[in-house]
Amino acid sequence: MALAYLSGLLQGDTRSLARCISLVENEAPGYEQLLQALPHRTNTRVVGITGPPGAGKSTLVNALISQLLLQQQKVAILAVDPSSPFNYGALLGDRIRMSRHFNHPDVYIRSLATRGALGGLSPKIIEISEVVKAAGFDYLFIETVGVGQSEVEIAGIADTTVVVVVPEAGDEIQTMKAGLMEIADIFVVNKADRDQADLFARNLRTLAHTRSGDWNIPVIKTIATQEEGVKALIEQIQLHQRGIYSHEQRHALLLAEKAYQLIQQRRMRDISRQALQQEVLKRLQDGDFNLYRLAAEWAGR
Amino acid sequence: MALAYLSGLLQGDTRSLARCISLVENEAPGYEQLLQALPHRTNTRVVGITGPPGAGKSTLVNALISQLLLQQQKVAILAVDPSSPFNYGALLGDRIRMSRHFNHPDVYIRSLATRGALGGLSPKIIEISEVVKAAGFDYLFIETVGVGQSEVEIAGIADTTVVVVVPEAGDEIQTMKAGLMEIADIFVVNKADRDQADLFARNLRTLAHTRSGDWNIPVIKTIATQEEGVKALIEQIQLHQRGIYSHEQRHALLLAEKAYQLIQQRRMRDISRQALQQEVLKRLQDGDFNLYRLAAEWAGR
Repeated sequence: MALAYLSGLLQGDTRSLARCISLVENEAPGYEQLLQALPHRTNTRVVGITGPPGAGKSTLVNALISQLLLQQQKVAILAVDPSSPFNYGALLGDRIRMSRHFNHPDVYIRSLATRGALGGLSPKIIEISEVVKAAGFDYLFIETVGVGQSEVEIAGIADTTVVVVVPEAGDEIQTMKAGLMEIADIFVVNKADRDQADLFARNLRTLAHTRSGDWNIPVIKTIATQEEGVKALIEQIQLHQRGIYSHEQRHALLLAEKAYQLIQQRRMRDISRQALQQEVLKRLQDGDFNLYRLAAEWAGR
Repeated sequence: MALAYLSGLLQGDTRSLARCISLVENEAPGYEQLLQALPHRTNTRVVGITGPPGAGKSTLVNALISQLLLQQQKVAILAVDPSSPFNYGALLGDRIRMSRHFNHPDVYIRSLATRGALGGLSPKIIEISEVVKAAGFDYLFIETVGVGQSEVEIAGIADTTVVVVVPEAGDEIQTMKAGLMEIADIFVVNKADRDQADLFARNLRTLAHTRSGDWNIPVIKTIATQEEGVKALIEQIQLHQRGIYSHEQRHALLLAEKAYQLIQQRRMRDISRQALQQEVLKRLQDGDFNLYRLAAEWAGR
């Protein structure tokens, strides 16, 4: 049943793609066979776009779509950020804001539910990314809000992580952005027409430089609303991706991290936090609670 | 062997405590029996102290120790933040800065290694916290830097999470601190003698109010260097803890979350990321790589 959509998916048919994603998202019968049947394709550039709310991530993604369409590229977007206008689950008004590209045949936009209150990524995001890759897109942008756990997780899922920030007082970079600092493959200073943008970008460049290894983390200034700087950003994304795919070890490391996350999910799926809470309550009431013993028993089930 | 330290531990002997923590940290023979033999004690208030570097977390913890010693309380500190002066593994000079309380018989300070490049918490922090609780401390402060994953993790380990911030331009609160926003049980605006501190605290209060449920998240102004506001902070910590321990469900939820983390660690300990990477490489070279299949096979091992 699920496999019936496979050939459509591999040909890039949008309806088949949508069906396949839903199958995986809902763990509908056959979704595992579908996932196991996917060929390993490496022609999709998986790009995480993260950063604080208000940095202009969605506007930037919009500008990226426009530019990539001019270059005859097929583009998919997964919006995990609940505040993103791409995440049209939220408000109908938001959906309309994004409609410029919504019906374009070479663009596929999908919003995904986040996991729990802390705004983590959808637990299915890795599998869904594999489905999108099988459909033959040139680019997959995964937009997440850069707070809490998701900023760290996105680094394990995207091949290139773009961190979008806006200019502000220079001495704040060091303190507030440390979490984002560590995951960025590329920095974008958006709203670069603001005062202090040059100083901010310069400071960021100095900081980024101290972290650079094989790859010199670039700092790109953009004005997403005017599509300025977007071409330069695409060039850096391409450059970074070439780096990954020309280094077998780095490529394998990225895939291994995804596999690790999937293994963890599978092994933990029989553990319900609610059932665990009930068990804790029971043992507390029996006066027989020991945290480590409980964990050891349940881990072995 | 490990159990030999148990009676000393339960009597609060510092040397036994240090030995027990080392046993657990190194997974030395007998550490599991030791953990399983610990009584469940609820008299230790486990308080996470987090926030960006430069917010004055360590100075605040110092001030908390001073105040609590005046109140005849026993205080333990686990420093996970690698930049913390409590984390004396780093620099000898730093250790000296903290020496005011270092040799006090009612104070126990220990630094813990962080896990990997993203600065996560020590994988052993939950178990080590249980050991400290068994030793009969009144307070356990866990200091972590508020970036990346650790800020989210700390919320699962501490009973009360204190987020320390410093005054800055009011409109930045909303954007940059969203990750910290979600985990705070108590906010501390430190360096409250700075300009704009009142405005900042007021804005933060408004924001915190929108998130408050059963518990109204307080915003406390402190000047840690002068020990100002520290008594008020202790009162709020006590109030919050009373809330937890008088609500069985909330207490069980906190314990269940810790158990969940421990179960996950146990179940994943046979999976080496390095071995996984080697396997990925091999399959890529054989032209037989499928992410989901690999994960399914390894999950089932």
